[in-house]
Amino acid sequence: MTDAYNRVTEKIVEELKKIVGPGNVLTEEEKLEAYSHDETSAEVYGHAPEVAVLPLDAKQVAAVVKLANREKIPITPRGAGSGLSGGALPEYGGIVLSIDMMTKILELDKANMVVVTEAGVVTNDLATMVQAEGLFFAGYPMSLQTCMIGGNIAENAGGGKAVKYGVTGRYVLGVELVTPRGDIVQLGGKLVKDVSSYDLKSLVIGSEGTLGIVTKAYIKLIGYPTAKSDLLVLFKTPEEAIDLVPVILAKGIAPTSIEFMDQLSVITSCKYLNESLPYEDCGAMLLIELDGSSVSQIETDLVQVGKLCEEHGAMEVYVAEDKNNIERIWNVRRNIAEAFKVYSPTQSLEDIVVPISRIPEMIPQLERLGKKYDVQIPCYGHAGDGNLHATLVKNPESSMADWEKNEALCLEELYKVTSDVGGKISGEHGIGIKRRKYLKDIIDPVELDLMRATKRAWDPNNIMNPGKIFV
Amino acid sequence: MTDAYNRVTEKIVEELKKIVGPGNVLTEEEKLEAYSHDETSAEVYGHAPEVAVLPLDAKQVAAVVKLANREKIPITPRGAGSGLSGGALPEYGGIVLSIDMMTKILELDKANMVVVTEAGVVTNDLATMVQAEGLFFAGYPMSLQTCMIGGNIAENAGGGKAVKYGVTGRYVLGVELVTPRGDIVQLGGKLVKDVSSYDLKSLVIGSEGTLGIVTKAYIKLIGYPTAKSDLLVLFKTPEEAIDLVPVILAKGIAPTSIEFMDQLSVITSCKYLNESLPYEDCGAMLLIELDGSSVSQIETDLVQVGKLCEEHGAMEVYVAEDKNNIERIWNVRRNIAEAFKVYSPTQSLEDIVVPISRIPEMIPQLERLGKKYDVQIPCYGHAGDGNLHATLVKNPESSMADWEKNEALCLEELYKVTSDVGGKISGEHGIGIKRRKYLKDIIDPVELDLMRATKRAWDPNNIMNPGKIFV
Repeated sequence: MTDAYNRVTEKIVEELKKIVGPGNVLTEEEKLEAYSHDETSAEVYGHAPEVAVLPLDAKQVAAVVKLANREKIPITPRGAGSGLSGGALPEYGGIVLSIDMMTKILELDKANMVVVTEAGVVTNDLATMVQAEGLFFAGYPMSLQTCMIGGNIAENAGGGKAVKYGVTGRYVLGVELVTPRGDIVQLGGKLVKDVSSYDLKSLVIGSEGTLGIVTKAYIKLIGYPTAKSDLLVLFKTPEEAIDLVPVILAKGIAPTSIEFMDQLSVITSCKYLNESLPYEDCGAMLLIELDGSSVSQIETDLVQVGKLCEEHGAMEVYVAEDKNNIERIWNVRRNIAEAFKVYSPTQSLEDIVVPISRIPEMIPQLERLGKKYDVQIPCYGHAGDGNLHATLVKNPESSMADWEKNEALCLEELYKVTSDVGGKISGEHGIGIKRRKYLKDIIDPVELDLMRATKRAWDPNNIMNPGKIFV
Repeated sequence: MTDAYNRVTEKIVEELKKIVGPGNVLTEEEKLEAYSHDETSAEVYGHAPEVAVLPLDAKQVAAVVKLANREKIPITPRGAGSGLSGGALPEYGGIVLSIDMMTKILELDKANMVVVTEAGVVTNDLATMVQAEGLFFAGYPMSLQTCMIGGNIAENAGGGKAVKYGVTGRYVLGVELVTPRGDIVQLGGKLVKDVSSYDLKSLVIGSEGTLGIVTKAYIKLIGYPTAKSDLLVLFKTPEEAIDLVPVILAKGIAPTSIEFMDQLSVITSCKYLNESLPYEDCGAMLLIELDGSSVSQIETDLVQVGKLCEEHGAMEVYVAEDKNNIERIWNVRRNIAEAFKVYSPTQSLEDIVVPISRIPEMIPQLERLGKKYDVQIPCYGHAGDGNLHATLVKNPESSMADWEKNEALCLEELYKVTSDVGGKISGEHGIGIKRRKYLKDIIDPVELDLMRATKRAWDPNNIMNPGKIFV
């Protein structure tokens, strides 16, 4: 799916200025730099657009897309740029369309428990606003301080609460989409149930901006869970910790989170934060959160989970019920990736996902791969979803050339091992540019053909975020 | 999207016999009759196929579809035939492909809480089997005694527990699909999270068999909720009952069910069952169920819901906690449609869905429409989802000709009114043949174009369940 695209001429820049206003069209090299990278390696994946535009509303977005489609110029939608797979990078140049200016929360419909928002709203702003009304957007990712609703939908982002609450997609009742032909269409709305023809909204969610640009979202809210308890559980070995995860879930208990951290992850993050958790002699930790509308509602489960932990060889079970302690522990969990960047800035943040019962098999595999390819693979992540951030970190002593060679080989083998146990290569970060070359190894050619046919049907000129997902 | 199709010749029948075995190919008129209707009116929508085949597995299904695609013969997948929109009717003749013989539950994977099943398994058989292991398939529809898993997925069926648990789609982690070209592909699997490219599985769910035939499903189970309480709440007027629904939900309480029954529905069903509920002077009832893993877990919510009911003018609040009483009440709810068939067999069972806060507006509209078009419109349904079975029942005294004219006009106006409040024409029954002509009135032409383009991309010869959804 490569195409010959046209360049952004001065005439087109003028036309763009007419659509979004001259101040919202950027062409200066130093300004475009900001739109050339995301949270992947800028050296490897970075690419500047020819022009960046910042429309104010769906009509302007539609006009820009119509222009791009007419002129066969690639257009790359961009949210906060916090993506981890290069999904917002304009590999073929052309136009970057930033949703930065579309930051209005349009309506909080309390009777229907739906919030209607523009796509450029920062997730945490939305979460804070609805929480003030006792409501909860449960599908947010860990990067909620920076990421935007539009980006969350494009990636179908998941986060630390997915065990109980699921990921972004479950809460998106509707989207306003600008199609690759530049039409504005609303898919879904305030309905919690709807089988009046194809569920195109679900196809758009997680399609990484390749099927259009989401400009508005209808998000289902639930009651804010006012009671919360966290268990921090220490184990001798990662295997013991991971083995317990399917045991808890099979009891029918639905914790909000079951996060896993191996020793290396905990120590690195604690050092970075100047924090001390009781990690001496501990090979791995589980961080298990339960929530509900009252303490009595979660007590039974809390006791049962604690008992299961002890029965399955936990060294210690700490219960954190006050806000400060809960926040301290989560802070360690959230900062693992940042901490490793200090230790060795060169890394490949991965998010393989496997059936929950197969997680234990992955731990020795990660150790083996780390040794084989001379990389460190700290492992942490959303164990309750089978979603592990098995991050490849460059050994600070090894050369860049060695790292590049080893990274590619190690990823290939990691993905193969993952696929062999019924897993997939991304649980929440997406394929983007970074993983597209591996897609053919893990996806049935029939499925890939259906995807390509669907993409062609929606975007015959392949102008909408080209190069993402598909090679 | 009409096409010239070829006929099923004797040569093709022979070829079909080679694929599925001679005993599983039916051509006798009296046998084909059973495949010519579903739960819609046989006179209006019935149509016999030229041949019915009953394959044993996905390979046989694929071979039949390949043949149909090669020969341009329409193929209509069929589950239990319990559909309410004509989705399984072979309007263009051709082949009906029944999943009747594909009835194996293949694997109960307790560690992952996933059941893998063939598509022809009756929903209740699956539910009973997993319940014996303390597990719960939460997405089933009211017709679970007869409907099949494959049909549930085709329609994205919903049921009485959707307020808390959502509908079928939420629990389908993966499907094995035979595509319209006759390829077998697995979409999804045992993963609870996956963003490794497009979510084609969600596109297939609810596509009414127009994008392929689901032969196998991976279904997520949850722990069986062992504690349960039901409130039967009586109100003077339907308005008072319906007004309370958004109030309960906005409190952040998630009841398993909030079912609504107006007076006419309750009386008719009670008469039919020779049952007596305390319905004297009562204009409408809400049936509210709460469930959880322990009584203490649901008590807080139960008390709060009871209090809300009383504050909002409920005449009586009965609490049913023993199995027998709960079953008695639900029996009345489940038998409303059957009861009306005795009263007047000619009816149009509808399932409009509106934003929850807009339900109250619908009640006077239904009364108005009933008077205007000389039909009775008993109203009951899943009020907690905004999904109302506003059923048009022929006045036994009026002529068939009048009914036919009035039904069409009344439906058109009902759908218009529904659309005007942000609703859609089907919350769980689907479009099928019955509602396709109304689709253009309630769906944006851009959305319809995207659907058609998607359908064409998947099924260029339009052989897979043609005539459904699209006119």
